[in-house]
Amino acid sequence: MMEAVQVKNAGEAEAVVDTLVGRVMATIRQRISGRTLAPGAKLPSIRGLAESMGVSKSTVVEAYERLAAEGAIQARRGSGFYVRRLPPLCLADVAPRLDRAVDPLWISRQSLDAGADSLRPGCGWLPPDWLPEAAIRKALRRLGRADAATLVEYGTPLGLPALRHLLAHRLAERGVEAAPEQIVLTESGTQAIDLVCRFMLEPGDTVLVDDPCYFNFNALLRAHRAKIVSVPYTPSGPDLALFAQALTEHRPRLYVTNSALHNPTGATLSAATAHRLLKLAEQSGLTIVEDDIFSDLEPEFAPRLAGLDGLERVIQIGSFSKTLSASVRCGYIAAKPDWIEGLTDLKVALSFGGGRLAAELVLDLLKDGSYRRHVEALRQRLGRAMAETRGRLAALGIEPWLTPRGGMFLWCRLPGELDGAQIARHALAEGIVLAPGNAFSLSGTARSFMRFNVAQAADPRIFRVLQKGLQRAGGHVMESPAEQ
Amino acid sequence: MMEAVQVKNAGEAEAVVDTLVGRVMATIRQRISGRTLAPGAKLPSIRGLAESMGVSKSTVVEAYERLAAEGAIQARRGSGFYVRRLPPLCLADVAPRLDRAVDPLWISRQSLDAGADSLRPGCGWLPPDWLPEAAIRKALRRLGRADAATLVEYGTPLGLPALRHLLAHRLAERGVEAAPEQIVLTESGTQAIDLVCRFMLEPGDTVLVDDPCYFNFNALLRAHRAKIVSVPYTPSGPDLALFAQALTEHRPRLYVTNSALHNPTGATLSAATAHRLLKLAEQSGLTIVEDDIFSDLEPEFAPRLAGLDGLERVIQIGSFSKTLSASVRCGYIAAKPDWIEGLTDLKVALSFGGGRLAAELVLDLLKDGSYRRHVEALRQRLGRAMAETRGRLAALGIEPWLTPRGGMFLWCRLPGELDGAQIARHALAEGIVLAPGNAFSLSGTARSFMRFNVAQAADPRIFRVLQKGLQRAGGHVMESPAEQ
Repeated sequence: MMEAVQVKNAGEAEAVVDTLVGRVMATIRQRISGRTLAPGAKLPSIRGLAESMGVSKSTVVEAYERLAAEGAIQARRGSGFYVRRLPPLCLADVAPRLDRAVDPLWISRQSLDAGADSLRPGCGWLPPDWLPEAAIRKALRRLGRADAATLVEYGTPLGLPALRHLLAHRLAERGVEAAPEQIVLTESGTQAIDLVCRFMLEPGDTVLVDDPCYFNFNALLRAHRAKIVSVPYTPSGPDLALFAQALTEHRPRLYVTNSALHNPTGATLSAATAHRLLKLAEQSGLTIVEDDIFSDLEPEFAPRLAGLDGLERVIQIGSFSKTLSASVRCGYIAAKPDWIEGLTDLKVALSFGGGRLAAELVLDLLKDGSYRRHVEALRQRLGRAMAETRGRLAALGIEPWLTPRGGMFLWCRLPGELDGAQIARHALAEGIVLAPGNAFSLSGTARSFMRFNVAQAADPRIFRVLQKGLQRAGGHVMESPAEQ
Repeated sequence: MMEAVQVKNAGEAEAVVDTLVGRVMATIRQRISGRTLAPGAKLPSIRGLAESMGVSKSTVVEAYERLAAEGAIQARRGSGFYVRRLPPLCLADVAPRLDRAVDPLWISRQSLDAGADSLRPGCGWLPPDWLPEAAIRKALRRLGRADAATLVEYGTPLGLPALRHLLAHRLAERGVEAAPEQIVLTESGTQAIDLVCRFMLEPGDTVLVDDPCYFNFNALLRAHRAKIVSVPYTPSGPDLALFAQALTEHRPRLYVTNSALHNPTGATLSAATAHRLLKLAEQSGLTIVEDDIFSDLEPEFAPRLAGLDGLERVIQIGSFSKTLSASVRCGYIAAKPDWIEGLTDLKVALSFGGGRLAAELVLDLLKDGSYRRHVEALRQRLGRAMAETRGRLAALGIEPWLTPRGGMFLWCRLPGELDGAQIARHALAEGIVLAPGNAFSLSGTARSFMRFNVAQAADPRIFRVLQKGLQRAGGHVMESPAEQ
């Protein structure tokens, strides 16, 4: 009983201190704004103010420190506190830019820059209320009781052993056999792909991607000064004839793809295409990077290139940004042992110890049954949102290219060959971030396509703005707005 | 009162569930190890086991889920749980390799790989008990009450506005004027330098470094395929005559350095050298990357290149891995506005949203007066450790190259021109990670030097092993072991 009461009192005591500190801060802020304390003026002594306000000296010290951290005042060692001379600095982030070209970074920057009140059917992640907020809060509290090393030390070069062990078993469930020593943790899925590219590519090397593919592959590969060649994607995987032709013509070093729940199309690589693809890769010495970050959204596991091939010439990438949290960054690479040592050296050189705290959080969140239940619920919720969004889009004459088995994306053709970029620019001005097709297409053949994230498409305003956009762009659009 | 009691009961209830789940897990583990449940066998039904053990079905489900996460059993959707067929996977991390060449990665990999029982006077960070563990625990608990977006959403492209605002004021205290929009957050100081290099360098470009310099600069620049040229470092900065000569001969694109508390020497750039260095840089169009991660360990602020130059041709890098936590990864880049947009695009392409959670934690830890008090205490403690380590080294005939103003490093000359790498290999076999001089020297002229981290040098065993190493290596060593 005693303990419980103490806890309560500690909380109360903390609240009282916060109030007193806040009162001192408000007093000083008033004097600064009212110019009683001019820029450059020295603040009252700590003892003097404590006496005049009837608070303790430590309360005044804390208030001054917080004001200094805010930038309202400035500490000079050994001399005291002074009102800042500089003009106040702008706190706001740069607003989304309407004039930016629709390059591969267009959607990323707009989606990430968009304020909390924007609607983002073009972004590639789930809304906050779809993610396991309560479990993360609990995990943070547990992490608050972890040992000191967990809280303050660098991780080992490969990353948290227990998490790699758990990942090895997750991979095995998907048919990918990888020992924990074949897994290296990274700070995100994107960083994992980047690290692999730095390990495998010389500047000027050719890399194959799908057309369409996740737009950031293009942005990332450009940063590597790679020559990027795209191969048309069919509902069962890349077009094999054209893939074989690209191998002969361009001798690519890497092929970067998603096997299951392909981004943006939602297509699934068929077992037959996977098999033939691997044979082609073997013949030409191609290495494949299989980005598998959507795997937990799959209703049932489709074949994985990494599984069929036994991580011989396939490197698999994963992360938990899509199903746990995009704020807690943790990804991984699974590859054959020969490559892991080199990848790890490179990781240490380029990011040193890695995000140990994030890895501990992810481990905590994965290690019991709650994660499995969470993703099961996600899959069901996505299924419902998919049906609903599809209906609303159909009312505008927008039809999906295929019916995905699961996931969050619908890859759609706009009616009347309209220009997706034009409609996306119009929508952005109305606070809605869309994902125009050509951001995903190296060949620029997806002008009249758009990717919709069904989890971010609940607000009817999206469809009203979309309808207006379609009309402006001059297409034939059905009359009734797609409201329920 | 009611609330406090509920909290306590919830905690107790959680503990009871944990015990019951643990009992079910132990039962199943026993059956597996005793082969009552053979590899591949189906586990008892949930209902059946719940009844026979007198626990709830949800307890059995939780136990099975945890066993599945551990990899002892395997879930097959729609079919139940099965004992794994695979051999158990190895949990242990790869041990430090004794045979590895002393390349620029030697110290990083050995220090990061070393177990908790190793001694690491060669590593570049503080021991866990020097870092603000209690404050981090508190911050994690507070973070557990943050809004959902903080916990699960990507950060904005530049990174948490409030933290960039606070960093702008910290920089101003050090004489560096940078608006919050001139600061981009990264996932670590190392990642910040990497990003700058990717932004500035073409493969084959030349980069100047100090000789000696932080060994990871060499590893990182090699990953960039840069041509690395080193300039001898003097107690007041780089040798200016040789620096000027290197500019003329090699037309370098970048110079990467630490201005204050130089790593490994602990030297401080003098105002005069800084001024002349900037003039030289201006004449030849050189950009300077000033890595300022040790700034909070300085007793008083020395001039910064970024401050003198007004971020015109200097880019400053910082992080909190050395003073807050190496597990919470957060760094930053301050640069002129023209460069920030390009750096941010690159950041989004290469790591997407950034570590929002880590940034929130760092903000929480910096925003009141406790951080200032913490680093003040650190400086005093480092001062004492510096004096003590210096004495112990002197007893072995090991003398510092200069007396640093602060920080954690002593850059020392070994007696009798002994080979530091040989001694480091000997020490590693005894579980002690040392930092031999040539790991820091591109020219290989620091063979008889060693960098000591005074905060990691409290254990007398270090000096006994060091003495043995010196003797083996054939030097003249004083007799008395350096114990207090």
